[in-house]
Amino acid sequence: MTGLVPGATLGIVGGGQLGRMIGEAASPLGVDLIVLDPTPQCPAYPPATDQIVADFDDNSAIRELAERVDAITLEIELADPAGLEAAVDATGIPVGPAPSDLRMTRDKLREKEALSAAGIPVPAYRAVDDRTTLEAAFEDLGSPLMLKARHGGYDGRGNAVVASVAEAESYFGDLTDLVAEELVDFEREVSVMVAQNESEQAIYPLAENVHESEILRETLVPARTSEDVAQRATDVARDVLSVLSGRGVFGIEMFETADGQIYVNELAPRPHNSGHYTIEGAETSQFEQHVRAVLDLPLGSTDLVESTAMANILGDGDESRPAYLAGVESVLSTPGVHLHWYGKREVRPLRKMGHLTATGADLDEAHSLVTGARDTLTFE
Amino acid sequence: MTGLVPGATLGIVGGGQLGRMIGEAASPLGVDLIVLDPTPQCPAYPPATDQIVADFDDNSAIRELAERVDAITLEIELADPAGLEAAVDATGIPVGPAPSDLRMTRDKLREKEALSAAGIPVPAYRAVDDRTTLEAAFEDLGSPLMLKARHGGYDGRGNAVVASVAEAESYFGDLTDLVAEELVDFEREVSVMVAQNESEQAIYPLAENVHESEILRETLVPARTSEDVAQRATDVARDVLSVLSGRGVFGIEMFETADGQIYVNELAPRPHNSGHYTIEGAETSQFEQHVRAVLDLPLGSTDLVESTAMANILGDGDESRPAYLAGVESVLSTPGVHLHWYGKREVRPLRKMGHLTATGADLDEAHSLVTGARDTLTFE
Repeated sequence: MTGLVPGATLGIVGGGQLGRMIGEAASPLGVDLIVLDPTPQCPAYPPATDQIVADFDDNSAIRELAERVDAITLEIELADPAGLEAAVDATGIPVGPAPSDLRMTRDKLREKEALSAAGIPVPAYRAVDDRTTLEAAFEDLGSPLMLKARHGGYDGRGNAVVASVAEAESYFGDLTDLVAEELVDFEREVSVMVAQNESEQAIYPLAENVHESEILRETLVPARTSEDVAQRATDVARDVLSVLSGRGVFGIEMFETADGQIYVNELAPRPHNSGHYTIEGAETSQFEQHVRAVLDLPLGSTDLVESTAMANILGDGDESRPAYLAGVESVLSTPGVHLHWYGKREVRPLRKMGHLTATGADLDEAHSLVTGARDTLTFE
Repeated sequence: MTGLVPGATLGIVGGGQLGRMIGEAASPLGVDLIVLDPTPQCPAYPPATDQIVADFDDNSAIRELAERVDAITLEIELADPAGLEAAVDATGIPVGPAPSDLRMTRDKLREKEALSAAGIPVPAYRAVDDRTTLEAAFEDLGSPLMLKARHGGYDGRGNAVVASVAEAESYFGDLTDLVAEELVDFEREVSVMVAQNESEQAIYPLAENVHESEILRETLVPARTSEDVAQRATDVARDVLSVLSGRGVFGIEMFETADGQIYVNELAPRPHNSGHYTIEGAETSQFEQHVRAVLDLPLGSTDLVESTAMANILGDGDESRPAYLAGVESVLSTPGVHLHWYGKREVRPLRKMGHLTATGADLDEAHSLVTGARDTLTFE
């Protein structure tokens, strides 16, 4: 432990909803947040003390941020690892996640290589750089397969299920910098949030995720699977921690197959949408845990308080417009449902605008409570 | 309901720890906070979007604040009711609490008169304005009695137990603008948080308070009293709501006597220290409830989640110095204990610097957990 007491200032690259919720969690610890984001008055701006308006890869702005804070973190993988490295080298402040962890998780191929090298189960994969390597991937992995851009994808963007080279070209053009994965016939999508500081590690309970069009819709905790599978997933999560060298909270997305095997799908070097349930559902939220981890304060308990269901509030329609949410009064009137609204001024199709959480003794009841509440919401 | 959706901006006069915790609770509702406080970077500044640096009674600054927000509130009774009234008259925005409620609770004599007029039990009292009225008070109420400044007291400041006119003069000089109260031989100090918007009222469970030198040290919920007394206190709280005309959360301090009678001691027209337990202990925290009430959003459930104990972290020593809290790592390592640190840069004797909360199935266990954790903390 570095012996930091409450009163530290944390710098964060990225000011979306994750930054906003990190700011909300930092305040009770007495930790101030300074955010770097190109959008003035970004979602994290209200709970943050100050904002530096600059691009995520503006390394002189990252350096300026580092000079004003006691530790630095990120909530978006677009942060430049080299810029972070230069800033922390110059200022001597700690950074979490480590730039090396960020380099690894920013590149879907390197991530799979690192996980495989550590003996962690991942779907079979091949690097794809042209037609020849893609044809070989179809031969090895079968068709259709999952093709992903190595860099820059999120919420399913940059991913496509393709059955032919022509189809792949229609999505990705020249087929460079891709990774092909076998399509896993999964029973369930699950995830585990983990955290580490300099001396401790912490693992949250197994969460079950419902995706649609590759965007997370709902999270249910504990996952409705066997104890064996939950234990296996926890063991895998611990192995993943051994691959990560730096401080912070990390999200581990996994597939559970019909025969109870676990495969790691993707890592996120930061709090993750599938961990939002922890605000009400866990003893320590993933956001507070991230602040603790990056400042090397003691980690908090990851125990589940009660069964918890989370539902995202996603933008609807098919064009951007000012965000005006109707139905919120009914949600606020529903006992047991908690609203988290990210303050985004504009709604766009499938944009993450907020989320709802419900807790209770009965997971199915919490699930129908939270989805029922979500279904009353519309954007006008 | 006014139909406000998340995305409103709330203005607040006063930026201490109550404003800070209101800001923390406003953010998940998508509500931005603008704070008016004379101290630059006051405790509420980090979670607030912006601060107007001005005195609490600077009515042109209050007017400026009102012009930038959708509703206005306060966290300190030093706000000038006339200034608030002028600002809301000019801008047409709602204010909570109502200036009339603030006028009443700012003046300990008017408060007692209003409560008495509504048939609400209060300790016997007399207005004191000189030696003659004080001598009459001793005759009517017995000696010693509690003498309070009508205006400006808090945390026991402006209060004194006195047994003679000479002793009273040593505290209050010329004896004007005072109220004398009989000393209630109470069994227990209890309190109830209440809330109202334009159409709903909500009442929290009965809390038990431990004071020392008239400063709150600990709150235990539910209060360790009989169901009859808890019901009586709830009925009194409902009667108090009928005396209050405006929106907001209000704290009601009460005495419980050995024979189970309830007397209202004082009202606070805002969230109250004895309601801090609601952050972890209740379905809806008093701070979120205050935001909902002032914006006329639906009130949330006041149900207790679990038994909850709260302990204040008070400044020690006998002089001001930079606040450096030692022992916080041990507190952060204790499962079940939650830290709330107010970000004050300077510790002063008995200053409220933060608080700790513990929840659990067993109230006594939560109580010893939270006091044990508090006792490991010291200021260096």
